[in-house]
Amino acid sequence: MSPPVKLGIVGLGRWAKVLTRAVQNSGKLKIVAAYSRSEDKRVAFENEFGVPGVPDMKTLLANPEITGVVLTVPNEQHFPLAEEVASAKKHVYTEKPIAQTLEDGLKIAALEKRHGVTVTVGHSARLMAGIRIIKEKIDAGELGRVAFIEANFSNERALELTPSTWRWYKDRAPGGPLSQLAIHQFDVLHLLGGEIAEVSSMASKLSPVGAEVDDQSMTLLRFKDGKIGYVGSCWTSPGIFAVRVFGQKALMHYEIDFGTWDTPHLLHKASTLYIQRGKDGWGKREELKLPESDMFRAELEMFAESCASGKPNELTAHNGNVAVAVVNAALKSIERTGQSVTIAEVMENARAKIGEKQAA
Amino acid sequence: MSPPVKLGIVGLGRWAKVLTRAVQNSGKLKIVAAYSRSEDKRVAFENEFGVPGVPDMKTLLANPEITGVVLTVPNEQHFPLAEEVASAKKHVYTEKPIAQTLEDGLKIAALEKRHGVTVTVGHSARLMAGIRIIKEKIDAGELGRVAFIEANFSNERALELTPSTWRWYKDRAPGGPLSQLAIHQFDVLHLLGGEIAEVSSMASKLSPVGAEVDDQSMTLLRFKDGKIGYVGSCWTSPGIFAVRVFGQKALMHYEIDFGTWDTPHLLHKASTLYIQRGKDGWGKREELKLPESDMFRAELEMFAESCASGKPNELTAHNGNVAVAVVNAALKSIERTGQSVTIAEVMENARAKIGEKQAA
Repeated sequence: MSPPVKLGIVGLGRWAKVLTRAVQNSGKLKIVAAYSRSEDKRVAFENEFGVPGVPDMKTLLANPEITGVVLTVPNEQHFPLAEEVASAKKHVYTEKPIAQTLEDGLKIAALEKRHGVTVTVGHSARLMAGIRIIKEKIDAGELGRVAFIEANFSNERALELTPSTWRWYKDRAPGGPLSQLAIHQFDVLHLLGGEIAEVSSMASKLSPVGAEVDDQSMTLLRFKDGKIGYVGSCWTSPGIFAVRVFGQKALMHYEIDFGTWDTPHLLHKASTLYIQRGKDGWGKREELKLPESDMFRAELEMFAESCASGKPNELTAHNGNVAVAVVNAALKSIERTGQSVTIAEVMENARAKIGEKQAA
Repeated sequence: MSPPVKLGIVGLGRWAKVLTRAVQNSGKLKIVAAYSRSEDKRVAFENEFGVPGVPDMKTLLANPEITGVVLTVPNEQHFPLAEEVASAKKHVYTEKPIAQTLEDGLKIAALEKRHGVTVTVGHSARLMAGIRIIKEKIDAGELGRVAFIEANFSNERALELTPSTWRWYKDRAPGGPLSQLAIHQFDVLHLLGGEIAEVSSMASKLSPVGAEVDDQSMTLLRFKDGKIGYVGSCWTSPGIFAVRVFGQKALMHYEIDFGTWDTPHLLHKASTLYIQRGKDGWGKREELKLPESDMFRAELEMFAESCASGKPNELTAHNGNVAVAVVNAALKSIERTGQSVTIAEVMENARAKIGEKQAA
């Protein structure tokens, strides 16, 4: 077995801790240096995880042992920091969404060719055990032709917003649950259903707290091959994460306890996955066993493999940009009272803005 | 207890048998005369249920004992037959949809005032035990403010269509599963969510059989109070009927084995209804017991009560017309590539066509 890949981490907030905890016992990677502008956070992080803090990005990037850097910084800092990391010829991992804007996301994607590095975007939901099993069954032909996919990701966040939280504001959390929760399912549907052609969306604002953002979101997707998809996201309800895939021979339903999201090693304990074969077979559904898995460990191990091999993994910048493009198309469709908006239109507009001509 | 209300039945196909079987042991009504143009069907019906056949509508309507007539005839015959029944001062029961066109549906609604009778439309899905319990919990405030409703009604019908079945054709089954299955859920969402303001829809055709109709349907609804709803209907998959209601304090999920649809007394045996209270409570969901019930018996007993009292029940012509109006708005939205269409627009167009000015 190869020695663990050595990584740095930048941005030492709550999420950095979730990720670092997830990989503490991985033999594939080791986080060896941590940077935050806040000295307090560096000290706290070193105390909790034994990872030495560094006083600036330059020191971290000068370390020749480090082949990749994990960014868990606010969305608007993804591009400038990714550019710094890539310029130092280190591989880039950035949390989802790939960037605050599709333009920045396309600029991050372009770093790969320009600097000869890989970019990995932490769209962890597609790595959940149930999603992987559904994908395997689809690929094995057990569902027959898939025609229809429904997904939901909801929680109570809109009931707790205050003007001091960034999610209160339209420009920072566009569409509310659309960019915060539904985006996870857009990536899952992209994985399960293939290329997405167009998007139609409806939104509403119902929480009593008075935040700027919408707090209800329903989006319809048309895939290139004609199948259709739905992603719902209610921001004023108990938490739910569910995916249902309809095929000509069988359908599958996966649902987890949203409360286990941050502790993925517990996720299989309060989850359900079943397959219903043939017509009228609901009463004869087969419950499938879900193995223990950890989507955060899995995504960072994929990143470590890319650092070692120089080859991209499935958590590509392109996939990250598709998820952001679906959010943007949904926002535009809402402005156009539901009229469908193509992903091509949104991508072309973003490319034009940054003066990029070729396809991403 | 009052003696059973005496009813006639017209149209003696498969559905007439399902309904008659459902009320054979009801103390509230008795089917005493049956009419079909086919003598064979009349004889078979009399042999199976002991209900004497009559040779024509006139004979049936001349029977002074009969206070109401159950119509289970093709959709395009609903209006002319309802008019004949109402003209004879008998109460009208008609299967859903109220009519093939909204115009005919509005004309059926107008029979009530013109002839002093009631019209009952067999939207049975709202009478299912799980739907009634959800409605009770909403009304009791147990869910808090409801913001979001998702529903699905799917089956494999599009894989079995042939040019000899009426569902093959666009003009007879507009939108495929939209007018055949989703319409049930539109009425359920109307019951649970209140008045519907506008509709946005997406459709697709994926079945290999080559029928005229679309076979995939996803529709978004905006209710008057801002809550939003989704109804999906896949016509190329195993059967499913599911409803999920998201409230600020709790969410509820109801799902039945579609295979029990025609035998509602068995429905509670392969159904599930749970309530998830508070945030992150999926793992602590409470499963609610579903009582045995029979939606077909319930709808005909409601009709019998209206025959006895002369007062309408909740299965009104208006509710039937709202469900058809949602289908029409969805079809128009599909033509307009997803742009939302108001129910008001669809209703006004239909009223203008039949020269009716006042609100239905």
